[in-house]
Amino acid sequence: MKLASFDGFRIGVLVGASLHDISEVIDARWRATPHAMTSLIEDFALLRPQIDRRVSDSTGVPIESVQLLPPVPAPTHVFAAPLNYRRHIDEMDGSSIVGADFSAANSAENLGFFLKAPGSLIGASNAIELPPLDGRSFHHEPELAVVIGKRARALTPRSARGVVFGYSCLLDITLRNSSTVQSERVMRKSFETFTPMGPFIVTADEVGEPSDLTINLWVNDELRQSASTAQLIVGVHELLAQASHVLTLRPGDIYATGTPEGVGPIVAGDTVRIAISRIGSMSVPVVQRKW
Amino acid sequence: MKLASFDGFRIGVLVGASLHDISEVIDARWRATPHAMTSLIEDFALLRPQIDRRVSDSTGVPIESVQLLPPVPAPTHVFAAPLNYRRHIDEMDGSSIVGADFSAANSAENLGFFLKAPGSLIGASNAIELPPLDGRSFHHEPELAVVIGKRARALTPRSARGVVFGYSCLLDITLRNSSTVQSERVMRKSFETFTPMGPFIVTADEVGEPSDLTINLWVNDELRQSASTAQLIVGVHELLAQASHVLTLRPGDIYATGTPEGVGPIVAGDTVRIAISRIGSMSVPVVQRKW
Repeated sequence: MKLASFDGFRIGVLVGASLHDISEVIDARWRATPHAMTSLIEDFALLRPQIDRRVSDSTGVPIESVQLLPPVPAPTHVFAAPLNYRRHIDEMDGSSIVGADFSAANSAENLGFFLKAPGSLIGASNAIELPPLDGRSFHHEPELAVVIGKRARALTPRSARGVVFGYSCLLDITLRNSSTVQSERVMRKSFETFTPMGPFIVTADEVGEPSDLTINLWVNDELRQSASTAQLIVGVHELLAQASHVLTLRPGDIYATGTPEGVGPIVAGDTVRIAISRIGSMSVPVVQRKW
Repeated sequence: MKLASFDGFRIGVLVGASLHDISEVIDARWRATPHAMTSLIEDFALLRPQIDRRVSDSTGVPIESVQLLPPVPAPTHVFAAPLNYRRHIDEMDGSSIVGADFSAANSAENLGFFLKAPGSLIGASNAIELPPLDGRSFHHEPELAVVIGKRARALTPRSARGVVFGYSCLLDITLRNSSTVQSERVMRKSFETFTPMGPFIVTADEVGEPSDLTINLWVNDELRQSASTAQLIVGVHELLAQASHVLTLRPGDIYATGTPEGVGPIVAGDTVRIAISRIGSMSVPVVQRKW
């Protein structure tokens, strides 16, 4: 099942190119609030028959006619893996960036997770807004995002399989200072609009094993990044297990699993497109921030 | 006004040692949910007359008789300042910790903010739960926490004054690996229960300028840290202004402003006490994690 958040925190199921509004199945307290999708995820097993019924009883609207929001508009946590592809470590370790250590010692295996600000999330209908460059650059990083389905802690990689609700495409836009001290990674990745996610969540049953998904990223018509999740240093279920020994994972939490090699700058006027096999694709324009 | 979250996300106003339940003034949609305090903060100016009326019309219960929750149980963001006291930089820079750079180049001035996991928050009635030590240590860091009152971006230090809702005591408990690579700062500070906050929020009008508040921390009966916010490298309003140029601050967002010198290990059986002048004090026991 493909689930999207749209227009005023409504929830839709995508069938072909039509979006079927299933908001009515959601607990009235959370319906049409930023917490609607989180509530749906939490109660999904219970609600599934009602969702199926509403989809078959409704006609749907063309997906182009709605405003797509981040699939989970208000997650408690957006976890993110630092260096988690070998060739990305290689390309960064040789770079001239001052004040940052991109060596393998700082991979996701040793470092664990960091967090991105939920306030940086946007949906597939929005634009990446770049602050003034001022000698800085902003990089594209395409990532497989995992959406957590239930409260869980102290997981093993095996038991972590049971807590994955679904997957989505995620862009981890990143400030890179080229000549001065690198500011906090968290801050460099948390600018408003710097976490495009979508267009929808594909539930885990439709994706199967996430261990060999192809991730491609284009800037305008140029393919810039192409890799497989088979190259992840720390795999999807290992990442979730690791985090779950630190704190309880929650329904709607997001885990951005890391970017492969080929990162590079984007500027206003570009369009960034991410595609992940069995998940979907999303095109996001890049504009100049107005504030 | 002193505001606390307690027992099932109810909201109370502290008068003397009595807590007056004002939950009924909160929008019914959010009442008795993790978002109750956020909603109250957002509508505070409007609700203030009703709050005052409820306080004077009710008798209150002894504060010892309730379960105190984190004052804001579900903030969108818990911002935190890295190295923000000169003498703390001095003590850390000379330490033997491997794989971490505590030099002044990495102060809050150059680095900006990082984030702590909202899932690590606990209230004054809870305990800090330490995972197995396994050769690791866990440090106490007492901090002045700022609670944001309204949506705001692109602030100046001057305009940032207008967005402070109030202040609270916060403990930023921190894993320090002594012999191996330091894992991500965010993860080391995001273990469940590693952000005790409370016992309540003191509104900004009762605190006045936050530029010379005394912060003390005791482990058991021993005073371990004593400093003034006058020693902050980046002051409260400058921190908020800096973050607001990255992304929009939101009602209920928390900013932990950094720890002074004197950090050190805690172990199960200890009691940690933080006191901040004009804000209050909070004692939290340290226990062994059961999972």
